[in-house]
Amino acid sequence: MTGKTWAFEDFVEGMSIDLGAKDVTAAEIVEFASEFDPQPMHLDETAGQASILGGLSASGWHTCSMFMRLFCDAILLDSTSQGAPGVDHIKWRRPVLAGDRLTGHTVVVASRPSKSRPSLGLVTLRSELFNQRGETVLQLENTGMFLKRGAAI
Amino acid sequence: MTGKTWAFEDFVEGMSIDLGAKDVTAAEIVEFASEFDPQPMHLDETAGQASILGGLSASGWHTCSMFMRLFCDAILLDSTSQGAPGVDHIKWRRPVLAGDRLTGHTVVVASRPSKSRPSLGLVTLRSELFNQRGETVLQLENTGMFLKRGAAI
Repeated sequence: MTGKTWAFEDFVEGMSIDLGAKDVTAAEIVEFASEFDPQPMHLDETAGQASILGGLSASGWHTCSMFMRLFCDAILLDSTSQGAPGVDHIKWRRPVLAGDRLTGHTVVVASRPSKSRPSLGLVTLRSELFNQRGETVLQLENTGMFLKRGAAI
Repeated sequence: MTGKTWAFEDFVEGMSIDLGAKDVTAAEIVEFASEFDPQPMHLDETAGQASILGGLSASGWHTCSMFMRLFCDAILLDSTSQGAPGVDHIKWRRPVLAGDRLTGHTVVVASRPSKSRPSLGLVTLRSELFNQRGETVLQLENTGMFLKRGAAI
């Protein structure tokens, strides 16, 4: 038996799960970009202002990674997750700028038992992050595998 | 006029572009996971060996971010890129483990001028990363916007 808060049965279609909040700093944006995405608008305020993004802006992959941390803290680390094979349809709707405060939610769009592995279920989640003006900055959808509540760990 | 190596016209359907190589260290895996994806199999060798991933393994978002750095160095930083609205169909095919050496390529699957912005073209790219045994670890597809060669910057 699992003592986790989130097992397969706990993801009910239509429910929305709050992801908390994350304040985005210029230092974090530059640190991530220096290692993984060294395009000028992710490294320098002046270059960011000169770009279509309008300011020092987070790499799209940084935004995804910040989403993942919120998702871990809100759900995944206290769940029966058995991983996910991928992600579909990442959309970077607006720039994430230094000083932004991100919030988000994850909606359960589908849930079904695995046919091949009776201890597992598949949960399709659609997640969104918003900035402090309520504008959507990130949308993504993925399907994760979670053990059923009664399954042995 | 742009002096970049990669403008819209340089992405010819069917061409494959080499992405170079990246050696993945345990320290990098743990550093990324500590900040963005602190699941046990990404933080600790013993926990990784006990998981279905079989060892200390990179967060899927870390693998995507390492891909992005290879893609930047091989193409994007010397291109007329005007950004990308998102990514489709990320698939984490196999675990990326500490000590792996990643290589990759990007294939041009489609290329078309923008109807609404004559200075731009849209290029759809399918990218893959492989480990040192030639096994696919990551697949993803996205569509980027690139200025045409004659466009003013």
